Amino acid sequence: MNSGQALWNKAKHIIPGGGQLLSKRCERFLPDLWPAYYGRAQGCEVWDLDGNHYYDFAQMGVGSCILGYADPHVNAAVLDAVSRGSMCTLNSPEEVALASRLIQLHPWADMARFTRSGGEACAVAVRIARAFSAKGRVAFCGYHGWSDWYLAANLASDSVLDGHLLPGLAPAGLYRGLKESALPFHYNEPAELEALFQKYDDIGVVIMEPQRGNAPAKGFLEEVRRLTSRAGAVLIFDEVTSGFRMNLGGLHLIYGVEPDMAVFAKALGNGFPIAAVIGKRQVMDAAQSSFISSTTWTERIGFTAALATLEKIERENVPDKLVDYGNKISEGWRMLAQKHQLAVHIDGIPPLAHLQFCYDNALALQTLFAQEMLGLGYLAGAAVYTTLAYDDNIIAAYLEACDTVFGQIRSALSAGNVERQLRGRIIQPGFKRLT
Amino acid sequence: MNSGQALWNKAKHIIPGGGQLLSKRCERFLPDLWPAYYGRAQGCEVWDLDGNHYYDFAQMGVGSCILGYADPHVNAAVLDAVSRGSMCTLNSPEEVALASRLIQLHPWADMARFTRSGGEACAVAVRIARAFSAKGRVAFCGYHGWSDWYLAANLASDSVLDGHLLPGLAPAGLYRGLKESALPFHYNEPAELEALFQKYDDIGVVIMEPQRGNAPAKGFLEEVRRLTSRAGAVLIFDEVTSGFRMNLGGLHLIYGVEPDMAVFAKALGNGFPIAAVIGKRQVMDAAQSSFISSTTWTERIGFTAALATLEKIERENVPDKLVDYGNKISEGWRMLAQKHQLAVHIDGIPPLAHLQFCYDNALALQTLFAQEMLGLGYLAGAAVYTTLAYDDNIIAAYLEACDTVFGQIRSALSAGNVERQLRGRIIQPGFKRLT
Repeated sequence: MNSGQALWNKAKHIIPGGGQLLSKRCERFLPDLWPAYYGRAQGCEVWDLDGNHYYDFAQMGVGSCILGYADPHVNAAVLDAVSRGSMCTLNSPEEVALASRLIQLHPWADMARFTRSGGEACAVAVRIARAFSAKGRVAFCGYHGWSDWYLAANLASDSVLDGHLLPGLAPAGLYRGLKESALPFHYNEPAELEALFQKYDDIGVVIMEPQRGNAPAKGFLEEVRRLTSRAGAVLIFDEVTSGFRMNLGGLHLIYGVEPDMAVFAKALGNGFPIAAVIGKRQVMDAAQSSFISSTTWTERIGFTAALATLEKIERENVPDKLVDYGNKISEGWRMLAQKHQLAVHIDGIPPLAHLQFCYDNALALQTLFAQEMLGLGYLAGAAVYTTLAYDDNIIAAYLEACDTVFGQIRSALSAGNVERQLRGRIIQPGFKRLT
Repeated sequence: MNSGQALWNKAKHIIPGGGQLLSKRCERFLPDLWPAYYGRAQGCEVWDLDGNHYYDFAQMGVGSCILGYADPHVNAAVLDAVSRGSMCTLNSPEEVALASRLIQLHPWADMARFTRSGGEACAVAVRIARAFSAKGRVAFCGYHGWSDWYLAANLASDSVLDGHLLPGLAPAGLYRGLKESALPFHYNEPAELEALFQKYDDIGVVIMEPQRGNAPAKGFLEEVRRLTSRAGAVLIFDEVTSGFRMNLGGLHLIYGVEPDMAVFAKALGNGFPIAAVIGKRQVMDAAQSSFISSTTWTERIGFTAALATLEKIERENVPDKLVDYGNKISEGWRMLAQKHQLAVHIDGIPPLAHLQFCYDNALALQTLFAQEMLGLGYLAGAAVYTTLAYDDNIIAAYLEACDTVFGQIRSALSAGNVERQLRGRIIQPGFKRLT
């Protein structure tokens, strides 16, 4: 057993679930064999606890490190902030600079608030939106974190806490009074949102990811905007995952549809904890009628890291490169799948490309893919978040490894012995998004 | 106008409330004159944006920096973590080490979870406790952050959102279905908790600070423990503020009353964002039946900073020094108040000493105190969180400054011209705790 697996087994004994993030569970990548922990990470390279070296073609910090791990520009700014004291009784001037910058990048927005995680920022946004609209129900589409307001969607069944509206997402630990407070609608289905507005006259908030796997149908975002305005509700775009990958700001800027608020996290700090809520003045001002306050939200590293990250994203045209790398990877997968006669499904925005094997034993194939790629020195999963730390040679080498492994998968499929080739258990899938 | 005030005025235009924390608002310390922002902080010394130098006898990062600002030991560990990459697709081994350490310090606890802010950690603790008890209502005492589950207490009035159960804490932005989900009881009043249990049979969680301003009455914590167990509810001690000041761990260890869960933040990371929930195995395991997950919770700095902070707290007997310094400050205030014939009220645990002027114009006096202390080079407020960065000479010099300013206050009181001596507006008090 590798050192990482030994530590992971210990972790599961003293940390429920083993860690703080579903998306970092070994069981989702490669049970029993995943290296689990890292000693060092630089660029797109990772060294595990046994000193093994990998290129990260999995999640690059679950999408947070678009500049690469330990980016020299961001780290220099952070190290300076730490040396000059990262916490104080007084405030950090960088906080105001970051608010200015985000507003400048989103001309429709006037004000900003900050937290230290994406889920927390979504909860702050919903609080402010509810305070402004003075209406309690939330219509939502997509994934918005672990908070009560969101998981409340799981209380939808008639009278007991056993309705799993979001398959795999358990509703335990929620107050029953939240039942029917969070109402889902599907992406590209504006009629569902309209029906919700017809059924409930107290929907004050609509929160959604502006784009998921596939592009918005023509007119969809515009229709959501129209319906939300008509109902006097606040429209929030959750850009925690989509922000700063396709462009310098929220993805909604590309589609030209203006929300009332937007939420950012992940890429904003290149891996340092920082999240932002921006919005129009009259909506954001409602924050002052509530109590939204936390000590660690004032800490200096988050603001500093975000400012340095935004500077480098702009200077190096990072989104262009993330898109280019993503297209090369997706195109490579497509060609290799054809070459090896594998049925695959590829989707997602280019900087967040998804690969799925279209067979009954898809999870076993995914497991075999991760196992064999790991052997060739790659952390690989069902999705690739691209990073500036890639280059054409690194991607070419990755695709060469994919070529080898797709070939092995083809042989195993043809021989009907996929499961026998696995040296550990099969991947356990996580929760599935409803919308 | 100083540079800090100029920036603060800009901030209030683009950040609702001016910043992320009520306790860092200039208006709570010294309106119009407070330096507001810092350039550098080291030990207990702070330099503002104009290069002015102060000793911090106010909040030391709102109680987070018990070792002092930019502590060399903690900063060295953080800088190393940043250099080796603070985020990755794999997990940080320091996460498991921190879980082990906290459990070791609290023998009744078996498992740990982590977040990045105290309010967030309280919300996680309540989620887990509700999931375990399968009962939805929460009885609480004291302050537990900005989350919905807690502010729900403000929905207590009969049918409209205008009941301010926590004076000064507005209820806007909360879903009405949470009404009567959070039920307050007063500190040292176990009969109130008992009455809540009699009235509601579905209280699954009791959360409280083990000590507030004054010590627990004899048998109070034991009675809370007994009532909570009898009702089959989960007892959570919120040690966000009290932890690691009086002893190496939660303050409850001193009182010998074991909760089912405890929450830490603030001092745990010496100013770097990290918060922890620890608990008994059967309770913590319920986390696995819910969804509690966030990307930034896995970042390396928080765990690293906490491990280094705990190491230094133990090695340097920090709580002993924090108590000693706090006693010297409180005793100094008491003597000086007597010398200048000022009526003051002093309370709090020694490492978190509160000073209150007992006059009708108390806020004006508090403002004059802050104004004159600032002129002498001290950040001073109504509370002092002590820090290892103090020493006897620094405290003696602070008390000498207090001597001067208490004299000025005495003269102003006698002359009846307190308000006329103020060069800015009077302090605006924040929310008042209910319990």
